[in-house]
Formats: sequence, C-alpha cells, structure tokens
Amino acid sequence: MGRPPVPLLSTELIAGAAMDLVSATGGFTIPELARRLKVSPSSLYNHVSGREQIVELLRERAMSEVELPDDDPDRPWTETVAEIMRSYRRSYARYPRLIPLLTAHAVNSSQAFTMYNALAGALTRAGFSAADTLRVITLMDCFVLGSALDLAAPVEPWESGAEVGPELAAALATGGPKPDRADDAFEFGLAVVLRGLADLTDR
Amino acid sequence: MGRPPVPLLSTELIAGAAMDLVSATGGFTIPELARRLKVSPSSLYNHVSGREQIVELLRERAMSEVELPDDDPDRPWTETVAEIMRSYRRSYARYPRLIPLLTAHAVNSSQAFTMYNALAGALTRAGFSAADTLRVITLMDCFVLGSALDLAAPVEPWESGAEVGPELAAALATGGPKPDRADDAFEFGLAVVLRGLADLTDR
Repeated sequence: MGRPPVPLLSTELIAGAAMDLVSATGGFTIPELARRLKVSPSSLYNHVSGREQIVELLRERAMSEVELPDDDPDRPWTETVAEIMRSYRRSYARYPRLIPLLTAHAVNSSQAFTMYNALAGALTRAGFSAADTLRVITLMDCFVLGSALDLAAPVEPWESGAEVGPELAAALATGGPKPDRADDAFEFGLAVVLRGLADLTDR
Repeated sequence: MGRPPVPLLSTELIAGAAMDLVSATGGFTIPELARRLKVSPSSLYNHVSGREQIVELLRERAMSEVELPDDDPDRPWTETVAEIMRSYRRSYARYPRLIPLLTAHAVNSSQAFTMYNALAGALTRAGFSAADTLRVITLMDCFVLGSALDLAAPVEPWESGAEVGPELAAALATGGPKPDRADDAFEFGLAVVLRGLADLTDR
C-alpha cells in the first residue's frame, strides 16, 4: 500500500536510460544499464533482443525531430536536400555523444530509411548516377554529423594563446556568439556543398 | 629482487590509458583512469593538472599524424588545403570515439594551432575574408571529422531490408568494399567542397 509504484520496464525506459548513460559517459553496457534501471540484465532481454536493438532505439530518438519536406517534383532539388539537411542536423545536435556510437553500427531503423530514401529519390531525380547518389549521401552524412558536433562545441572553440598566427586571429575575431556562429557556418557550408554539387549536374 | 618493475607514472602513460578507456567506452573519468593505472587519483595530479590537460594530450595523439605541406605560395590553394584535409582525416580516423570528446573541449594544443594557422594562411592568401576564413575552417572541420567517423563505420553501413526504396537500393548496390568506398566518398566530397569554395573566390 505505502510502497511507491515501480515503473514497469519498457523499451522506452530502457532507451531513455541508455541515452542518459551515453550523454554522461559516451557509451553504455548492458550491466550498467541494468544497474541504472535497478533490474537484472536478464530482465532487459525480456524487452530488447540485445545491444544492437538498443542502439537502433537511440538512433530513432536522435532522428525523431527529422522532418521531411513534401515530395514536390517541381521544387529545385537543392531546396529539398537543404531542408532535409537542416532538420537532420538540428535533430542530431541534441545528442552529440551518441554520434560515434551510431556511425559504428549499421543503420536498421525505419526513420533512418525514410530519410535516406527521400534523399536518394531527390538526388536521382536531380540526375545523379546511382554511384554519385551514394557518394553525395555520404558527403551529406559526414557534413551534417560534423556540424551537429560543432553545434555542441564550446562557445570559445579555441583557447586564446600566443600560438595563434595573425590570419587565424583575424578569422577568430569575426566569430559571433553561439549558436548563431554555428548556424551561420552551417548555412555557409551547406551553400558551398550544394553549389559544388550543382556544378556536377550542370555538366 | 623478484618484484616486476613498475613503470613510472608519466603523462605518456596517463594519455595512453585515457585513450584506451575512450576507445573502449567512449569516455574517461579521473577515478577510472587511476584504477586502470593502479594509482591513486592524487598521484595523477602530480603529472597532469586535470581532465582538461588529459583531453589536450589526447588531441595531440589524434593529430600526431597530421602532416602539413611546405608553404609554397606558387601552389594552388586548393591543393594545399586538400593535402591538409587528407592528412587530418587519416590521423583522426584512428580514434573515432575520441571525436565528440575533443569537439566538446576548447582547442589548446600546439599541433592543432599549427594546423589551423596553416589553413587560415592558405585561405587568406586565396582571397577569403577573415569571416569567410572562419566559416571555411568550420566547414572543413565538420566534413573531416564526419569523414573520420565514416571511415570507422561498419563495412555494411545499412542493414538490407524491405524499407529500402528503389533509388536507395540502386545507390547502395554501387558501394565497393571498405576502406576504398570511404576513401572514394571522401575524395568526391573534398572535390565538391573545393569546387563550391573556388566559385566563391572567382566571383
């Protein structure tokens, strides 16, 4: 009667605890997760098949705020791709320490496939070959995940010191406050990448 | 006499143990590090000032294989920048799980400053304004760190499944074995980024 209610174990609770561990320590193990949830490791296996499934649950959380634009064939492909990239970066930037864990595991979640399908469709319609579509998706992934890490970087990315040369000092002096500086650099980078890609489709 | 020699504690040993912990678990704490080295936390503080200094020692290891080209003003800036980027990616790809830890801390190591000074010098000579030089350096950082994570990704980056649409399936079918596929995608991405940047300097 006076006993506090114990939340039932669920995949939701398991994923939440794993995310807390990753955000605090950079990783998780099944025994750590069981200790944190005050259950035995074997109880976890009643809800998830193992570590791989937990990683995919984390990937779904990281991607939960990715919004895909409506599929409009009349819209320039660069706009469609830019919109996907912006939303992908914002969603992942919430969990920067998760990124190397996710890239170390093969993708196997619906949200991820939905996004990559949308990208592949837009790039194919833009005229990229199948091989270039794979290369462009890889470039986008690398740029977006790096940018999500940059958004989580400290306000002062460089300690000021005597070793900073004049050109670097002049560049650093132009940096505004975060997150505006990261957003500005991301939009600049996105425009550079799309311009470089548009050159390819124009040839 | 029969006692095995105990290695003396040094910043080298501390950095090596911290790197092992990060590679295995994604992070490190001072108590974990002390346990691993079989010393007390206070002994660590006889060699390092704290966690920040250890992170910088790890950054120096991650950058230890970065090679900077000779400063040749007659060489096209795109070649100089491409060479720095290739060597930066190769060096960081050895320690993918270290990346979010490094991006979460302000840079304060000589190797890093030397590389960023070389980049800022090449970009300034190419005609980029101080503000654009900072943006280009951020773009390069994001792309290279994302690519270092991609190089460490599994051979099969996507589990095959019914959710893969026809355009994505066609793209994935073109992917060769790793690390060739990652190298090919990096060279493609580098060329795209440099083409997009060259457009800016030509205007």
